[in-house]
Amino acid sequence: MHRIEELARISEEPERLTRTFCSAAMRRANDLVGSWMSEAGMTVREDAIGNLIGRYPAAVKGQEAEQKILLLGSHLDTVRDAGKFDGPLGVLVAIACVQRLHETSTRLPFAIEVVGFADEEGVRYHTTYLGSKVLAGTFNPEDLKRTDASGVTMADAIRNFGGNPDALAGARLDPNRLLGYLEVHIEQGPVLEQKNLSAGVVTAIAGQTRCLYGFFGYAGHAGTVPMDLRKDALCAAAEFVLAVEAHARACPGLLATVGELAALPGASNVIPGEVSLSLDVRHPDDAARGTACARLQALAKDIAQKRRVDVESSVVHETQAVVCDKRLATTLDQAVKRHQTESVLLPSGAGHDAAAMAAITPVAMLFVRCKGGISHHPDESASVEDVRLAIAAMNDFVLLLAQQS
Amino acid sequence: MHRIEELARISEEPERLTRTFCSAAMRRANDLVGSWMSEAGMTVREDAIGNLIGRYPAAVKGQEAEQKILLLGSHLDTVRDAGKFDGPLGVLVAIACVQRLHETSTRLPFAIEVVGFADEEGVRYHTTYLGSKVLAGTFNPEDLKRTDASGVTMADAIRNFGGNPDALAGARLDPNRLLGYLEVHIEQGPVLEQKNLSAGVVTAIAGQTRCLYGFFGYAGHAGTVPMDLRKDALCAAAEFVLAVEAHARACPGLLATVGELAALPGASNVIPGEVSLSLDVRHPDDAARGTACARLQALAKDIAQKRRVDVESSVVHETQAVVCDKRLATTLDQAVKRHQTESVLLPSGAGHDAAAMAAITPVAMLFVRCKGGISHHPDESASVEDVRLAIAAMNDFVLLLAQQS
Repeated sequence: MHRIEELARISEEPERLTRTFCSAAMRRANDLVGSWMSEAGMTVREDAIGNLIGRYPAAVKGQEAEQKILLLGSHLDTVRDAGKFDGPLGVLVAIACVQRLHETSTRLPFAIEVVGFADEEGVRYHTTYLGSKVLAGTFNPEDLKRTDASGVTMADAIRNFGGNPDALAGARLDPNRLLGYLEVHIEQGPVLEQKNLSAGVVTAIAGQTRCLYGFFGYAGHAGTVPMDLRKDALCAAAEFVLAVEAHARACPGLLATVGELAALPGASNVIPGEVSLSLDVRHPDDAARGTACARLQALAKDIAQKRRVDVESSVVHETQAVVCDKRLATTLDQAVKRHQTESVLLPSGAGHDAAAMAAITPVAMLFVRCKGGISHHPDESASVEDVRLAIAAMNDFVLLLAQQS
Repeated sequence: MHRIEELARISEEPERLTRTFCSAAMRRANDLVGSWMSEAGMTVREDAIGNLIGRYPAAVKGQEAEQKILLLGSHLDTVRDAGKFDGPLGVLVAIACVQRLHETSTRLPFAIEVVGFADEEGVRYHTTYLGSKVLAGTFNPEDLKRTDASGVTMADAIRNFGGNPDALAGARLDPNRLLGYLEVHIEQGPVLEQKNLSAGVVTAIAGQTRCLYGFFGYAGHAGTVPMDLRKDALCAAAEFVLAVEAHARACPGLLATVGELAALPGASNVIPGEVSLSLDVRHPDDAARGTACARLQALAKDIAQKRRVDVESSVVHETQAVVCDKRLATTLDQAVKRHQTESVLLPSGAGHDAAAMAAITPVAMLFVRCKGGISHHPDESASVEDVRLAIAAMNDFVLLLAQQS
């Protein structure tokens, strides 16, 4: 927890925590976290994109190139005006876990590599998972041409940071050597707090569909068009907003949100003729998400037809669900149960580095209770007790894995 | 109809019709319309604020100062990018009516004064009814200090136009000499078109309450907060929008409109924590409007309570209803029936000069069918036949009044 505080003081903005990809603040953060990795008995390196990697070798010596590797980690970058836990918690819990192994001179049949990913939030270049995509070999080299708000290309940013944009392909990890990836992360939601539990095992990272809906009625004077002659686009949209909510409430695991809504022309004395709105649909099961999207589209058409307005919709963004590895999740759940009477399995509605890492290795995630469900905000908070439990559970997880291998 | 076209070419903007208070375009409009008044046998004057007034004397000569006066008219100013009918139609129909009297050498027991009001729309100084308020003696002298977008005070604008800002109080008409005020106006709504009628008699100009509502829930991540733990301000607002619509549909004469709605923070992946919206409530009966506002406020509170969100509301603007004079309306309806098989009585949801004139004299209004209900738009349109009927009806109205007196 002291380290969380110390790391949170490293920011590129004076009064708030903001640490973006390849910034000077990230340089200082990698140096500081690297020193903690060394203290915990790890050898420290940085890869071509600036991921910080600490290696704790396996018990068997001599054949290092053939040792299997268990990856632990999360990201060290943050959003703007961030909380202290989103990202760093997973890296620091992993270091504490290794430190405990180191202090008790415990060696495992596999190596552990703790990764502090260089970019997960995507604040600087508006594309996420830069760090984990490089390790997973799914990084798109075209992204190197992207420029930040100051016109600096990603390639130059990586070079200035001390990385090598020409060597990203070579930084890919060999899947055959990996046992899996475990990420501890703050929940960013209220479920564990509601259940009064410190930690929960993630079953899957939900897939997401983001749609844009437009309702087209007919604008008119609020004082002269009788109620029964109106084609009020906002009333149609309102009916849809409530239909979305009702459908999501009725379908287990489904989250559906209208987050943006604009009514045009937008004057108090004019009946809205046009409404555009965003629809965000998430489900840990891709088929269920597809069914829900189709159902909501049908509901929108029904509403529009009944109200004699037009409706259009389009999908603007889509990501598939990532299912966590059953064996790793079961082992993790076993470990958690040693420290918590009840165990809980829950999906992650937000994306994480684990989603990118799943391309090359089985993944597991442990969520830590988040005060008030608040995240991406300076008030983001986790308790000492819950973080202690996360470290203990991770420790037991690696020891259980060692027993299995 | 030729005059409507000719007058519509007088604009302060090249490609569209815009004629604001005391502009050079208004100077030319007053001069042109004044020449038509002269042709129709009227003596023409301008009052201290620039209202154009044509007088057609009564049959009885010698005691002009004691002749009763029937006022006919509407306004000559327009909104920006206006239609041709809103305002001018009422002035030109009145001139055509007097012209017919003049051509048939018909003199009445009362004088007729046709007024082209200098400002009804309030575009230049953001306050409406400047012309009719001066005649009604309800003009607020403080308004003379208002400045337009170029910094010109209203007092200077009136002076430049040829008026006299110091003589506005003296321009008030003597209520004892007035028989009433009749205004012909394009409907600006779809009721007459729906009923397939040329014209309808207005019963009242609806009162209006404009409110601001705020719904306050709790913002959260669209991917991490389960549906049953959300306090979605937009869902609460959507329920209110539909409750407003349902209540207005159920209450005869009530119009209620949510025209503006803003959801904050307004991101596709964030549950809306706050929604503000406008509510416009109109009814020809003030008590019914008051009851409706109270009911809608109670519905908002119920919705908020049920959804565990907060709601606040405030009244930002309120005008009382103006009831049209029963005797004048009956006479007008009689006149309309001579030219139209069916007659219809309807309220006006928009404000008009008649609302200001009601302070000193009984008022009546005749609505003319409006193509597609479109107004405040270049597409605003009325047919030759409907305008002909309006002139004929006004003629019969003044003749019926003459018989009554």
